[in-house]
Amino acid sequence: MTYWGWQCTLGSLTYCILYDPETKMSAIIIIDQMHSSIVSQLESLGYHIDYLPEITRQQLERSIGKYHGLIVRSKTVIDRSLLERTTQLQFVARAGAGVDNLEEDALNQRGIHIINAPEGNRDALGEHVVGMLLSILSRIFEAGISVRMGHWDRERFRGSELAGKTVGIIGCGNMGNAFAKRLGGFGCKILGYDKYNPVDDSIYHASVNIQDLYHASDILSLHVPLTAETKGFYNYSFLQQFKKPIILLNSARGAILPLNDLVQLIKDGKIIAAGLDVFEKEPFSQLSRNEKDTYEYLISSPVVLLSPHVAGWSIESYRRINDVLVEKIKHLKATGLID
Amino acid sequence: MTYWGWQCTLGSLTYCILYDPETKMSAIIIIDQMHSSIVSQLESLGYHIDYLPEITRQQLERSIGKYHGLIVRSKTVIDRSLLERTTQLQFVARAGAGVDNLEEDALNQRGIHIINAPEGNRDALGEHVVGMLLSILSRIFEAGISVRMGHWDRERFRGSELAGKTVGIIGCGNMGNAFAKRLGGFGCKILGYDKYNPVDDSIYHASVNIQDLYHASDILSLHVPLTAETKGFYNYSFLQQFKKPIILLNSARGAILPLNDLVQLIKDGKIIAAGLDVFEKEPFSQLSRNEKDTYEYLISSPVVLLSPHVAGWSIESYRRINDVLVEKIKHLKATGLID
Repeated sequence: MTYWGWQCTLGSLTYCILYDPETKMSAIIIIDQMHSSIVSQLESLGYHIDYLPEITRQQLERSIGKYHGLIVRSKTVIDRSLLERTTQLQFVARAGAGVDNLEEDALNQRGIHIINAPEGNRDALGEHVVGMLLSILSRIFEAGISVRMGHWDRERFRGSELAGKTVGIIGCGNMGNAFAKRLGGFGCKILGYDKYNPVDDSIYHASVNIQDLYHASDILSLHVPLTAETKGFYNYSFLQQFKKPIILLNSARGAILPLNDLVQLIKDGKIIAAGLDVFEKEPFSQLSRNEKDTYEYLISSPVVLLSPHVAGWSIESYRRINDVLVEKIKHLKATGLID
Repeated sequence: MTYWGWQCTLGSLTYCILYDPETKMSAIIIIDQMHSSIVSQLESLGYHIDYLPEITRQQLERSIGKYHGLIVRSKTVIDRSLLERTTQLQFVARAGAGVDNLEEDALNQRGIHIINAPEGNRDALGEHVVGMLLSILSRIFEAGISVRMGHWDRERFRGSELAGKTVGIIGCGNMGNAFAKRLGGFGCKILGYDKYNPVDDSIYHASVNIQDLYHASDILSLHVPLTAETKGFYNYSFLQQFKKPIILLNSARGAILPLNDLVQLIKDGKIIAAGLDVFEKEPFSQLSRNEKDTYEYLISSPVVLLSPHVAGWSIESYRRINDVLVEKIKHLKATGLID
């Protein structure tokens, strides 16, 4: 087992004890940085844990065969070529909501369970998106910069109220619902559109079809997962069908919303403001010349509010995601679906 | 009546028709800029309206004797010396919530009705203050600036959730309630403290005494009017009694919160962040050297979010304030309390 030599350079010596398959314990490898609570929680379920957040893809390929469980955040794509190296993998757990970095078909074919933790970060996401929306409507971001520059311009920062407006939500799962629930006290109308999930009528004023959503929305918030179907779907031709000029919010995945199209829709006046937590390229590096123009337009636009993919990212969610994953692993173990 | 000559330079010629007391119509003078809807609304109640937003104090003193009603925003203090010039004034209406620019005792002594319009801007205020709070908790303001500067630093902008925290509200009238109502969907505990008004238990989880507020609050939001009692009241010795480090929000009046004390409490770690829409000196001009240091500290502090007294200031409230005032004037007229 000489290939374990690299472990001691990874700064997490505590969890670099070699996993010895002879012990007959099931073993889990964690390949991204996570709140430290996860290790002791999983150990108490009887697992051996290798916490290796600095592991490279190549190193993972060489060692994955030994593990029964794999826990990831976003760094690594869990695809067919990696899965070919597995011999006893029973589950892959994603420390977050989206599973777009997992090849679901390939995992399903091998009978490997997929676990995710939207219950862990939906509250943080809901709060962030309402915060972005109010910051846009009440001009908080812009006014804050203006005051810091020594100006005092009340008339310039007269806001627009959420009360009385209609908010259209696409995707009424954990994330859409968390956003919608928080709008309950604002006196706005909340419409839900979901192609696959039932829309919870205790949270939404109405479940609508896409035509009604186009017709009524003043604000549109996207909460769909990234799939082959949603990739690039919320493009120019989709968004121009809204009847009124809209405020657009995207906290789901960057790849569902082509930013070139967004820029054009802002120029057209169809999108009057946007709150973006996710982008086609994250971080904003290695952009082509054309992409650079697009991102520079968005960054310098007074009607666009940006954040660096942190909408589900809170002190509380960092820990709660672990609790959710551990609970789900415990449940699978208790029902005999994994060892 | 040669003193009316200045009227025609004021740019509001439509409403500069001289008021002629011989007509026996009751007349109202409006001395601040307001949404234009107010004039026709009041005319339809049978009033003559002089809309003179550029009028000076001296000009007002010379002409106030002719009017039955006076409508103000903030520019002019309606004090004893002005009221001595009135002969038939029956009401003063303030186009906003606070009446701290009206000398209430002097008005009451003369039997002059005071009208204000908190119902007109409470929604805008509630939205703005929730927006400031979420912007602070989810780091939206700071993260927005960082992304605009080309950075991508997710770990730096991990937020803190409102869910599970306790929000203490001082002053449970129109404004405090508007803020509290909007918190209903966020899973936080909402405590109300009010020395004079009953606390509505359909909005707050509990009505508490000041000791309980000190003990439990993670967040404190001030919603009291500016009076002799509240002026400078929320000072160092008051705020240091909170048990936990708190986030402080002030959207009420600047004079209730001494900013020197706030700076010290931030330095002490007792106040971990602040959202300020109002300030002791507005706008930030004509500051003494000491004041300048205080304001510069606040403006450059990463934990302070500032806005230029716009929390009740929306497109909708601009018009709705008029509707509220007109409705109240109509009611007083209908009940025979004013002509």
